[in-house]
Amino acid sequence: MAARQMHLGAFLFNLGNHSAGWRMPSTRTDGLMDFAFYRELAEIAERGKFDLLFHSDGLGINDTYDAVLRHSVTIRPEPLTLLSALSAVTTRIGLAATVSTTYHEPYHIARMVGMLDFLSEGRAALNLVTSSTDLEARNFGRDTHLDHAERYERARECVDVLRRLWDSWEDGALVFDTASGQVADPALIHRADWRGRFFTVRGPLNMPRPPQGHPVIIQAGISEPGQALAAQVADVVFSIQRTLAASQTSYAAAKQRVIAHGRSAEAMKILPGLMPIVGRTRMEAEAKDRALQDLVPASLAVSYLSDEVQHDLARYSLDGPLPDLPETNAQKGRLHLIREQARDGLTIRQIATHLVQNRGHMRLVGTAEEIADVMQTWFEGGACDGFNILAASHPQGLAEFVDQVVPELQQRGLFRHDYAGTTLRAHLGLPKPANVFA
Amino acid sequence: MAARQMHLGAFLFNLGNHSAGWRMPSTRTDGLMDFAFYRELAEIAERGKFDLLFHSDGLGINDTYDAVLRHSVTIRPEPLTLLSALSAVTTRIGLAATVSTTYHEPYHIARMVGMLDFLSEGRAALNLVTSSTDLEARNFGRDTHLDHAERYERARECVDVLRRLWDSWEDGALVFDTASGQVADPALIHRADWRGRFFTVRGPLNMPRPPQGHPVIIQAGISEPGQALAAQVADVVFSIQRTLAASQTSYAAAKQRVIAHGRSAEAMKILPGLMPIVGRTRMEAEAKDRALQDLVPASLAVSYLSDEVQHDLARYSLDGPLPDLPETNAQKGRLHLIREQARDGLTIRQIATHLVQNRGHMRLVGTAEEIADVMQTWFEGGACDGFNILAASHPQGLAEFVDQVVPELQQRGLFRHDYAGTTLRAHLGLPKPANVFA
Repeated sequence: MAARQMHLGAFLFNLGNHSAGWRMPSTRTDGLMDFAFYRELAEIAERGKFDLLFHSDGLGINDTYDAVLRHSVTIRPEPLTLLSALSAVTTRIGLAATVSTTYHEPYHIARMVGMLDFLSEGRAALNLVTSSTDLEARNFGRDTHLDHAERYERARECVDVLRRLWDSWEDGALVFDTASGQVADPALIHRADWRGRFFTVRGPLNMPRPPQGHPVIIQAGISEPGQALAAQVADVVFSIQRTLAASQTSYAAAKQRVIAHGRSAEAMKILPGLMPIVGRTRMEAEAKDRALQDLVPASLAVSYLSDEVQHDLARYSLDGPLPDLPETNAQKGRLHLIREQARDGLTIRQIATHLVQNRGHMRLVGTAEEIADVMQTWFEGGACDGFNILAASHPQGLAEFVDQVVPELQQRGLFRHDYAGTTLRAHLGLPKPANVFA
Repeated sequence: MAARQMHLGAFLFNLGNHSAGWRMPSTRTDGLMDFAFYRELAEIAERGKFDLLFHSDGLGINDTYDAVLRHSVTIRPEPLTLLSALSAVTTRIGLAATVSTTYHEPYHIARMVGMLDFLSEGRAALNLVTSSTDLEARNFGRDTHLDHAERYERARECVDVLRRLWDSWEDGALVFDTASGQVADPALIHRADWRGRFFTVRGPLNMPRPPQGHPVIIQAGISEPGQALAAQVADVVFSIQRTLAASQTSYAAAKQRVIAHGRSAEAMKILPGLMPIVGRTRMEAEAKDRALQDLVPASLAVSYLSDEVQHDLARYSLDGPLPDLPETNAQKGRLHLIREQARDGLTIRQIATHLVQNRGHMRLVGTAEEIADVMQTWFEGGACDGFNILAASHPQGLAEFVDQVVPELQQRGLFRHDYAGTTLRAHLGLPKPANVFA
């Protein structure tokens, strides 16, 4: 049996995941809505044999703070349409769309993600998010957001509905017998007949079963309900981890939870976010990192943190401690991380700078060899099953990782030299699920 | 000034628009969910210099009648994702997605259709439908469908919201000044701030203004509220017409209504559906037509008509008259056409056969020259601005039209030899609309 190997995702966010990434001279600032820009990124990631391209999303413009609107990229290309277009110009890489279960109907999600699976011949994934701001609620006829626990219950129920819809047509249900005129076998077509707390969906879905059976399901919430949801339904978890020790503890706990739900530990791959700042020398990498940091306006950093904690921090001293924060209905997992940093004695400026750079994810600054060392330690030390790579700038940061770090990982036998299969489930080593109606 | 020329749409429906089209030996019955099949159709239509590819849709499986489930294609590829993928492999042809304003939120529609416009660099269109069956309602948490008049009011309001969302970012709002760190100019970003009867949407949309300003809007309803909606908002109308005289009357009336709404008569292009059955000789065409007709099972025809009128006709004599039909909340325009045929003395079998073949649209059977003759008479006789071509089988029916009828139209100066512009608005001769906030 082949040795266990890492799984890698390429996380697409703005013109790069660092909030100053777009200011790098190599970045195409006209790329944000240009298909050719995304095509290039997809080709780089596919050349690097990544498991998947992972597209972030949000359902509104954050305009609470002028500095956020003025100094950060608030535009979001729509992931389902963008990834569908990318399916036509790629052949192997997985395509993961972020979709809100709070503001989308399961019948639409099942169709669009199922269609992406057909278009890509088995490479689709769905990153379930529950959306977290009142600003998003107001774009969908509501004044306030669903309660935190409720929206995770809704997400859980949504997955149940999706699976029944994807299973509507058993294999063999489409007959197409030109001689007899029979198109379909009604005995193999099933209704969902779902009546739950959040959804009532009759079905059947008007689409045969997707090539992967069920497209891959990703969960990215780090709160308690988010982790509970992941243990039940996720094939892939996109987590936030800052230290090896914390990641080892959380990895072991997550795998235990998966097993407690009657699933195998291997059925859920855990990929912490990682922003690599690669240099030919450590000095070069550190200079790059500093240059990026220096390009973040202080007003943006504080406004960004204020928005994250839903409390205006402009009236506090930047070099003083974070004040006590009120409880909110937003992203609880992230809030917890911020409070931890405050307890560790970090100032508002330090927390804000860390957050705004890469939204709280781990940053590794060094040579390809040094970065591969840490990745190997984490991977072999029971801290993860791979990483979700958050390149600081696009396309350069991603190209540097692919050209410098990936070969290092391949040489060490930690990462594939080429794709073995054609579907995302094959890349991840996940079996095709059985049909619930079969 | 160049002479007025026709506009042509290629209507994609199943494996061909004729309900027996899939049984033709040339049809790829495995094409229904295969991207390569749609890519070939798009390439044929683009080779034929069509204005647009027009993808139908429906939000459920029609399983009321076993014969419909067994003998007709009830699968529907999802249009927004499919057309997004096709945008990557085409360069000029317009891409029109059918979207239900009853079951989609305007914020999602604005993003997805706007994104299709970016992906295709200005070739997106949106065919507004209001959905018409309780079966669809039950896939979205409702037991019955919205009232007919109400769902057209909702569609009207949806267009208003879409336009405000597409206009959120004025030209120049995205700055991307790498030196100063300014991404956007907040003064040029606008909220929709919409509070209507059906929708409450704050905005702004998280996307710059699409290349066409507003993607092209198509309306296909033929009922009174459908026609009223079209006169107010449609750039293109997809109509059903059976005779020249009726089409002339309806064309003149529709243009008058457009003018009454303060728009120019040229601002709305009217394209009746047309199924061409092309032969090298008239005899060959007629043989083809009969072969198709003979392949429609009688059980399918009657079930299809029963479904359309929402009344089971199996217990009536097939060769007798249509009984009095109860009023329904479904597609009123189509019901009206069916009643007209009954008044003309057609039997249940005749009406059902006509309907099931091409859903009530005109069928022209003949040589390329004969078909071009009729098209010319209609076009020059004030009956239409072009046609929406419903090829009986795919890809062969579409290829025959492109290879035989299109050159005939081009020779007569009735249709373009090549695209003059790159956007769908350019093909249709429609200006880019002004921004409501500018």
